[in-house]
Amino acid sequence: MSRVVPRPEDLAAAAEVVATLTTDEKVALLSGASFWETVGVEHAGIAPVVLTDGPHGVRRQAGDADHLGINDALPATAFPTAAATGSSWDPALLSEIGAALAVEARALGVDVLLGPGVNIKRHPLCGRNFEYFSEDPRLSGALGAAWVRGLQDNGVAACVKHFAANNQETNRMRVSAEVDERTLREIYLPAFETVVEAGVATVMCAYNALNGTPTAHHPWLLTAVLREEWGFSGAVVSDWGAVTDPAASAAAGLDLEMPGTAGASAERLLAALADGTLAETELDRAAAAVVALVQRAAAARAAAGEVTVDFDAHHALARRAAADSAVLLTNDGILPLDPSAAQRLALIGPFARTPRYQGAGSSHINPPRVDDPVVEIETLLAARGGGTQVCHDDGSDVGAAVALAEASDTVVLFLGLPAAEESEGFDRTHLDLPADQLALLAAVAAVNPRVVVVLGNGGAVLTAPVEQHANAVLETWLGGQAVGGAIADVLFGVREPGGRLAETVPLALTDTPAYVNFPGTATHVHYGERVYVGYRWYDRVERAVAHPFGHGLGYTTWAYADLTVAVPDPTVAAATVSVTVTNTGEREGSEVVQVYLSDLAASVDRPVRELVGFAKVRLAPGESERVEIALDERAFAFWDATAGQWAVEPGAFRVEVGSSSRALPMSVELELDVPRVLGPLTLDSPMGEWLERPGAMDVMLGLFSSAIGDDVAMPELDESLLAMVASMPLRQVLTMAGAVPDPATEAAALARLESTR
Amino acid sequence: MSRVVPRPEDLAAAAEVVATLTTDEKVALLSGASFWETVGVEHAGIAPVVLTDGPHGVRRQAGDADHLGINDALPATAFPTAAATGSSWDPALLSEIGAALAVEARALGVDVLLGPGVNIKRHPLCGRNFEYFSEDPRLSGALGAAWVRGLQDNGVAACVKHFAANNQETNRMRVSAEVDERTLREIYLPAFETVVEAGVATVMCAYNALNGTPTAHHPWLLTAVLREEWGFSGAVVSDWGAVTDPAASAAAGLDLEMPGTAGASAERLLAALADGTLAETELDRAAAAVVALVQRAAAARAAAGEVTVDFDAHHALARRAAADSAVLLTNDGILPLDPSAAQRLALIGPFARTPRYQGAGSSHINPPRVDDPVVEIETLLAARGGGTQVCHDDGSDVGAAVALAEASDTVVLFLGLPAAEESEGFDRTHLDLPADQLALLAAVAAVNPRVVVVLGNGGAVLTAPVEQHANAVLETWLGGQAVGGAIADVLFGVREPGGRLAETVPLALTDTPAYVNFPGTATHVHYGERVYVGYRWYDRVERAVAHPFGHGLGYTTWAYADLTVAVPDPTVAAATVSVTVTNTGEREGSEVVQVYLSDLAASVDRPVRELVGFAKVRLAPGESERVEIALDERAFAFWDATAGQWAVEPGAFRVEVGSSSRALPMSVELELDVPRVLGPLTLDSPMGEWLERPGAMDVMLGLFSSAIGDDVAMPELDESLLAMVASMPLRQVLTMAGAVPDPATEAAALARLESTR
Repeated sequence: MSRVVPRPEDLAAAAEVVATLTTDEKVALLSGASFWETVGVEHAGIAPVVLTDGPHGVRRQAGDADHLGINDALPATAFPTAAATGSSWDPALLSEIGAALAVEARALGVDVLLGPGVNIKRHPLCGRNFEYFSEDPRLSGALGAAWVRGLQDNGVAACVKHFAANNQETNRMRVSAEVDERTLREIYLPAFETVVEAGVATVMCAYNALNGTPTAHHPWLLTAVLREEWGFSGAVVSDWGAVTDPAASAAAGLDLEMPGTAGASAERLLAALADGTLAETELDRAAAAVVALVQRAAAARAAAGEVTVDFDAHHALARRAAADSAVLLTNDGILPLDPSAAQRLALIGPFARTPRYQGAGSSHINPPRVDDPVVEIETLLAARGGGTQVCHDDGSDVGAAVALAEASDTVVLFLGLPAAEESEGFDRTHLDLPADQLALLAAVAAVNPRVVVVLGNGGAVLTAPVEQHANAVLETWLGGQAVGGAIADVLFGVREPGGRLAETVPLALTDTPAYVNFPGTATHVHYGERVYVGYRWYDRVERAVAHPFGHGLGYTTWAYADLTVAVPDPTVAAATVSVTVTNTGEREGSEVVQVYLSDLAASVDRPVRELVGFAKVRLAPGESERVEIALDERAFAFWDATAGQWAVEPGAFRVEVGSSSRALPMSVELELDVPRVLGPLTLDSPMGEWLERPGAMDVMLGLFSSAIGDDVAMPELDESLLAMVASMPLRQVLTMAGAVPDPATEAAALARLESTR
Repeated sequence: MSRVVPRPEDLAAAAEVVATLTTDEKVALLSGASFWETVGVEHAGIAPVVLTDGPHGVRRQAGDADHLGINDALPATAFPTAAATGSSWDPALLSEIGAALAVEARALGVDVLLGPGVNIKRHPLCGRNFEYFSEDPRLSGALGAAWVRGLQDNGVAACVKHFAANNQETNRMRVSAEVDERTLREIYLPAFETVVEAGVATVMCAYNALNGTPTAHHPWLLTAVLREEWGFSGAVVSDWGAVTDPAASAAAGLDLEMPGTAGASAERLLAALADGTLAETELDRAAAAVVALVQRAAAARAAAGEVTVDFDAHHALARRAAADSAVLLTNDGILPLDPSAAQRLALIGPFARTPRYQGAGSSHINPPRVDDPVVEIETLLAARGGGTQVCHDDGSDVGAAVALAEASDTVVLFLGLPAAEESEGFDRTHLDLPADQLALLAAVAAVNPRVVVVLGNGGAVLTAPVEQHANAVLETWLGGQAVGGAIADVLFGVREPGGRLAETVPLALTDTPAYVNFPGTATHVHYGERVYVGYRWYDRVERAVAHPFGHGLGYTTWAYADLTVAVPDPTVAAATVSVTVTNTGEREGSEVVQVYLSDLAASVDRPVRELVGFAKVRLAPGESERVEIALDERAFAFWDATAGQWAVEPGAFRVEVGSSSRALPMSVELELDVPRVLGPLTLDSPMGEWLERPGAMDVMLGLFSSAIGDDVAMPELDESLLAMVASMPLRQVLTMAGAVPDPATEAAALARLESTR
C-alpha cells in the first residue's frame, strides 16, 4: 500500500504545485469545499479529498451533513469504542481494527478518517471519555499509534485528535485549559507525540484554548512543538468549526479549516494577506500541506483500486475485540458459566437485548447489524448442546424480574449508563448507575445467590454498589456492534475476558484527581492536580480505589519469576526489563505484564510510579514466556520546567512488575550514573548551590570581601541556619549584608567562576 | 494618641515637603539609612524612623543587625505567637496585645513594628505558619485588624505582611506563586484588605513572586489593588532584601526599600530617572509616602513622651492570652485536674521545664523571663494548699520516666516539635511528632491510666497517634514566655482553655489540600487546590479529619437555640444572624459562636461552607446571651473571574451556626433576590444563553435566515441535543451551518438585540 504521510520529497513536490497556483486558489485550499470535502483545483491536478468522522467506525454521511451524530450515515461496522479497546492493552488488536477501518473507509470513498482520539481521561465525568483510551499517556500513545499504523498501512490517512488538552465537553468551545508545561509534556502531549512518531498523516486541533490561546491558532502547539520539535510533516486540520480567525490559524500552523465556510474564510485570509497579518510564506506552507495530503490520498486511492468490505469478517473481529477488551472486575468463581450444565439461566435487565455499544455525537456509527445478547447466548448454548434453559426479562417490572430470578439457578443482569448520559458535547454529572438499576440488582440478589452483572458504559461508574450484590462483574464498556456475541463468549468461557482497566475505578467522585477543578468556569479550567492524573493521583495521595489502573481478571492464574533489569551502560538512561511469566492455571489465557518505574532520588516531586512498558502475552496452561520490555530514555525522564527540557537525573530507580498498578509482586532497584545537568551559577542562584558547587565558595567570599573592603571568612553555619539560608539567592544575602556588587564586580566574579569549571 | 496612618491632608503636607527636596534627597529617602532606620533630611525636618521585627514581640537590636533572628535583641515580652493567638478567635485580646506591644516599641524607640503576618496557612508544612493566624481569611483579617488597631491607637505603626501569597519558605526568594485571580481574591488577599480597611500604616511586600512578577515590583498588587481599589494611603515597605530592581519597585508602587544598600539603590534610581524607566512622579509618590510616615511617626513620638514598660503586667497579659489560645483537643473528663486533691502528679517530658514558646527567625524575641511549667504548677498548687505531690522527669531515660509514671496517680506529658524543625527560612517535611516522644508516651500510657498530653508546636502535627494514648490533649502552640503559667492555669481550671482551632488538624499529610502542589520547584508553585484551602478542602472532598477547623473544648457545656436570620431587604445582600447561646454547665466559660454560609444555587463551584462571622462570648453557668452577627455583602459574594468583580447571585443560601466547621447544630435557609448581573450577549456567547435570554431567539434565527437566504425556524431540540449545543458559542453553530455572518450583519444583529433589552 501507499504511504499516506508525506516525505520531504513529497512536500517539495507539493510546494512546486503550490507555486503554480494563484493566491485565490491557494487561499481556497485552506478551507473545505463542503462539510466533508476539501477544495479541488482541476488545472493543477488537485482533487478533493474526503474526511469523515471516526474513530471506531466510518461515519460517511450521504445526506444532510452534521458533526454531532444527528443525521444518519451509510452502514459501517461499529467496532468497540476506545474506552473498550483502551482496555485491551493490545496494540496488535488496534492495528487489526485500523486495517479493517481502512477497507471500510476506502469502500465508502473516505481518504481521511478522523481518529484516533488520544486525549487523556483527566476526569471520569468527561462525556467523551468513551472516545479516548486511557488515563495514562504511554498506553494511549501505544494504542493510538498501532491504530494509525493499521489504518495508514492500508492507504487511509488518520487524523489524531484533539490536539490538545481537550479533556472535557463542558464549554469546550470557549474554555481555556490552564496547564503548566511540565504537566503538558508529561501527561497531555506524549500520546500525540507517539502517534506523530508513528507517522500520522494529519493532526486535528481541539475546540478549547490552552493557556489562553485557542488551540486552533496556537503557534507553540501547532508549530514549535508539533512541527519543529516532533518533526510532523503532515497537515493540521481544524476540529469542525473550531476556527474563529482563519488568518491567525494559518499563521499559527493550521493548514485546513473544516468544514467549508462558503468563501467567508478565503475572504478573511485575503484581507489578512493584504494587511500583512498573514505572510505569503505561511499561506504557501498551509497550501502545500493540503496539496501533499491530497496527492498522497490520490496515490493511495489509485493503489487501492476497487475495494469490497467483508462485513461478516469485520463483525467477527469486532466480537473478538470486544471480548479482549472486556474487564472482569470481580469473580468469586461463578464465571465462566458451564455451557453444558443443565440449569435455568435468567437474562435480566434493560440492556439484555439492546446493549449499549456506542456513544452519542460525531462518532455515532450506523452499523449493519447489532448483536442481541439474549440471541447470542441462546445460539452459543444451542451449538454446545447443553441443557441450559434461557429466560429473559427486561427488568422494567421488578416483581416479574424477581420472580424469574427466584425460579432460576443463575442470573445475568445487564446494567449500564443510560444512553442519554454519555455523549460528545456535554459531561456527566455523577458516577452512579441509575438508582432503579441498583434497586433491581438488590432485589434480584436477595432471591438468587448466583448473580453475574454485565456492565455497559463508556465512562467509569462506581462499581462498589454493584459488587456487594454480585458474584461477578464484567465491564464491557461500549463494546461495539458485536458486544452481545462477545458477552456470550466470555460468560461461557469461549473466550477469556481479556481487558485490563485503562482507567482507575474510584470509590467516590470526591476522590477523583480533578474533583475541585472540573469543569471550571465558562472560560477557565485549572489543571490543579498537575501530573497527578489517574493512578498517579491515587498513589500519591494514598487513596483507596475500587479497582486500580491495570486491574482485570481472566480465567486462569499467573506466576511471575526471575525479574531482572539490565542496564548496559549506567551513564545512559536505558534498560531492559525481563521477567518470566507462567500460566499456572488450567485454561489458555492472556496476561498484561505491566512495568512501572519510580524515581527514588528525584530533585522534583514525581509520581510514585509510572507505567513505562507493558506486554500482552497469551499462553497455554503450564506454558512460560520470558517477557522482555525495553525502557527508553523517556521512561526515566521528567520535564524540567526551569531548563525547558527533559531531564534524567542520576541515582536510584525502582522497577516494579505485575498485573496492575497495585498488584506488583516483583521489584528491583537500579542505579543510573547519568551526568547531572547543572545550570549556570549566578547571583540569583541560591546559597545552597553556591556552597555545594566546586570552586564557588572562594568567588562568593570574594564578593563579600570586595564590597566590605575586608577579608571575609566563611562563618560557621549550624544546620538550622544553613537550612534557613540554603534557598536564599546569593544576591539577597549580599544585599542584606550591605555588600551589593556593582555590575562590573558581578561580571568579574562570574567570569572567575566560569574559569574554574 | 496620634494617628499613624496619613489622611489626604497629611499626604498633601508630605508632598509639599518633597517639593523642597533635591532629586538626590528624594532618591535617598527610598531606601534605608541602615538595617533598621530610614534616611533623615535635616533641613526638611525629616527625622529617621526605626522599623523593627515583630510580630509577637519587639525585636530591637542594639548590636549587629540581622533579619534571621541570629543576633540578640534587647529584652521584650514574648507574647504568644500568631499560631496561638489565631486560636483565640478574640479580636479584643489581639487589640490588648497590640496596645502592650506599642508601649514596648515606644520604650525601645521603635516607630514601626513589622506585623501582623496575615498570610494564609495554605499548607501545614509551611515553616513560618507559627507567625500566621489561620487557614481562613476572615479570621486572619479580623485578628490582624484588631492587633493593628491596638498597636496604632497607641502611636506605633504596624506593617502588615507579607503581601502577598507568601505561603511557604522553600525557595521563598525566587519562587513564583501561580495563583488564579479568584483564589487570590477569595483566599489570599482578603485578610490584607481587612487590615488595610482598619487603617494599617504600612504594608510589607513579600519575597516571592506572584504569577511571574516579584511582589516587590508588582504593579497590580502594590498599586492597582492596594492603592486604587482598597484606597491604601500609607507606605509600602519591602521585606528585608526583597528588592532586586529598585527602579522597578518604585515604579510599581513600593516606597521604601529595606535595609539600606549604602547608596547602591539610590544610584540605580538616579540612572532609571535619567533613562526614563522611572518617572519623577513615581519618585515623588514614594518619597511623599516615606515623608508622611516619618511625619506621623514624629507626631506619635512627641505625643507619647516618655514611656515605661510594666513587664509584670505584660507577662500577666501573655499568660492570660496563652490560656485563651490553648486548644483542648480531647478530654475524657480528666481535665481540669483538682488542685486540692491528694495525688501524686508526674510532669514528664522534654518541654516540662523549657517549653517551646516561639519559633526561629526574624520574629525571635529575647524575653526578660520565661515561665517554667513545673515551677508554675508547683507555685499554683502551693497557693491552693492541696496535697498534690509533684515530681518531674525530663523523659530522656524512658525507664525512669515509666517508673515515675507507674508510681503516680496522674501524668502530664509535655511533647512538641523540636525547635530546629520550626523556623522562618525553611519548611517542615512531615507532620509527625518525634518518634522518641511517641514511644515515651506509649510507654507511660502503658503503666498509667491517667495521661494528659500538653503539646507545644507552631504548626499542626498529627494528633491521632497522641490521642490514642492520652486522656486529654491540650495544644498550646507556641504560647509565648508565659505559656508555662498558662498551662498551670488551664490544667487546674484556674482558666478555661479558650482556644479553637484556626487550622484543621488532618489525619495524614496526604490528605492536605496542597499536598501535590507543595512546595513546587525552585521557580514555580501552583496553587492547584485553588480556593479549597483548609476546611474548604476537607469539606469539599468529604475527607475525615483529626479535628475540624473551629474545634476546641472548654470546661463547661453549651446549648444553641432560636437561630434566626433577618434579611431586611432581599434585593440587598446583607443579613443579621441571631442565636441564643446558653452556658449549660457548671463553670464559667467562653464559646466561639461560628457562622458559616453556603451558596446553594451558585453558577460556579463554591466551597461547601465558608466562615462569615464569629463571636466569642463568656458566660456564667446558666447564663444566656442573644448573639447577633452581621453578614455583609462580601459574606455572600464570590469573585467572578470572567467579569473581574465580586458577584452575589440570587437564590438560596444556608446559614449554619455552631462550635466548629463540623459541629453545626443549627441551620436556616434564606433567599436573596438580588439582581442577576448578565454580561452582554455576543456571537461568542453559548447557545444556552441565546436560548434563555428574552428576545434573543428572533435575532438568532434572523442570523441563520439572512445567511442561508431563507426563513429558518427553530428546530425541535430534544434534551440530549440541547445539552450538546448549550455550551457551543453561537458563532460556531453558525459556522458549522454555513451561516457565517459578515461583520455588518453581526453588528446589526447585536444592535437589534440591544434594542430589545
